[in-house]
Amino acid sequence: MPTIHSIGLDDARRVIAAGEAEAGRQGQPMNIAVVDAGGNLVAHIRQDGAWLGSVDIAINKAFTARAFDVPTGDLAENAQPGQQFYGIQESNHGRVMAFAGGIPLTDDGEVVGAVGVSGGTGEQDQAVATAAAGAL
Amino acid sequence: MPTIHSIGLDDARRVIAAGEAEAGRQGQPMNIAVVDAGGNLVAHIRQDGAWLGSVDIAINKAFTARAFDVPTGDLAENAQPGQQFYGIQESNHGRVMAFAGGIPLTDDGEVVGAVGVSGGTGEQDQAVATAAAGAL
Amino acid sequence: MPTIHSIGLDDARRVIAAGEAEAGRQGQPMNIAVVDAGGNLVAHIRQDGAWLGSVDIAINKAFTARAFDVPTGDLAENAQPGQQFYGIQESNHGRVMAFAGGIPLTDDGEVVGAVGVSGGTGEQDQAVATAAAGAL
Amino acid sequence: MPTIHSIGLDDARRVIAAGEAEAGRQGQPMNIAVVDAGGNLVAHIRQDGAWLGSVDIAINKAFTARAFDVPTGDLAENAQPGQQFYGIQESNHGRVMAFAGGIPLTDDGEVVGAVGVSGGTGEQDQAVATAAAGAL
Repeated sequence: MPTIHSIGLDDARRVIAAGEAEAGRQGQPMNIAVVDAGGNLVAHIRQDGAWLGSVDIAINKAFTARAFDVPTGDLAENAQPGQQFYGIQESNHGRVMAFAGGIPLTDDGEVVGAVGVSGGTGEQDQAVATAAAGAL
Repeated sequence: MPTIHSIGLDDARRVIAAGEAEAGRQGQPMNIAVVDAGGNLVAHIRQDGAWLGSVDIAINKAFTARAFDVPTGDLAENAQPGQQFYGIQESNHGRVMAFAGGIPLTDDGEVVGAVGVSGGTGEQDQAVATAAAGAL
Repeated sequence: MPTIHSIGLDDARRVIAAGEAEAGRQGQPMNIAVVDAGGNLVAHIRQDGAWLGSVDIAINKAFTARAFDVPTGDLAENAQPGQQFYGIQESNHGRVMAFAGGIPLTDDGEVVGAVGVSGGTGEQDQAVATAAAGAL
Repeated sequence: MPTIHSIGLDDARRVIAAGEAEAGRQGQPMNIAVVDAGGNLVAHIRQDGAWLGSVDIAINKAFTARAFDVPTGDLAENAQPGQQFYGIQESNHGRVMAFAGGIPLTDDGEVVGAVGVSGGTGEQDQAVATAAAGAL
């Protein structure tokens, strides 16, 4: 029977804390969400003043990064008109977010969850997600 | 505990009245909606003869302008193929309207709600929303 | 070709004003919505302090009252387990509200729209809707 | 312009921590979510081993408790067949959870947010939510 490795709540909190620290350095409030190996939400926080519309986006970026085991920014390229995954955003009940800010969490090369960040530009979101993922 | 400022019903009515006046000058009937600081609908009107399909759009433009604290027309540029937020329309359960006509309502630089207008061209919607927002 | 009579925005505002007055007498803030003969929203207001969750309910009660040309409180009886319309709430994409507070607006016996009220008990909602409908 | 008081992220974390402590005492892992005065998610955690299906329920219980300024367990009674709000679960796009586990957060009698808990029996959820709300 396969064994699945997955982050737990303590891991999620460590990841989120690192993301918050980076968001603080940027001075841009963020939504940060973490999902486990099953793609299910483990933890989410919205910093004071962060966009309301980014709650859903952060959670869905995390889902997307685990759903396809890929940084959502990479998926973006393939989701453009004329590219091989054009239209993928319509799948999964609107949960696929194909733009930067979602990153798989890996342990020894195995994907064990993902983090999703939303609240700034694509670059800002990506930088916070990278810092967050690095804390695993 | 943070204190949030938000428009109330009286404010919403003043905003809508200013929008109606501008729509009258244009001779184009409109849907006009106002949400509060929480993104929740405070008031909506559909002028006689305005598009039925614009009820939802006006309400969602107002939501979007508050959800991301940005004029929806600005979001449009970033939501195009190849741009950083391409695909954002799939988030928030179809409530994100990334084209002109939604404008945040601000008080002393703080976003306290938003207005959304739909019923004409993007330019017309934007002009009515601008007039409406100016009445706060 | 059939002629449809329908309320317009001025009528909706008169109806809403009467509802607000009754809500004021009760001291209970309300959401009040009016739809036209096509079941499409004409106007909605949320009084300061009224329930956020009642925005959707007021609009849907108005829709329901016109969709079936019946006070929503009467529909409630038929929507109970074992009754002839049990399950009707699942239809129309969740827009059927089968409890008191929605009333058809009639002119010379013809249904020309509907009003929906939500924000208090069923009795309070019904009293406000009745006062509102009486102003047509 | 009306002033709204709302919990922020620090408050949400204090509320969640108190809920986790109570869940630990019960030995039943839980999902705990907190929304602000606008009904928008501020923070969510899923304890290791808690039900996956309860992510959505906890978030929606928090929404519901704020949407109607009522403990969701009280709403349950009124949402039964034959009662005044039977069918309310169909409103608000499936976000209304009319059973125990959601409690408004109040400050000096004003609702400033809400907490929602899901993961055990109704009694367990309610006990965790009560402990959580008490920490505000």
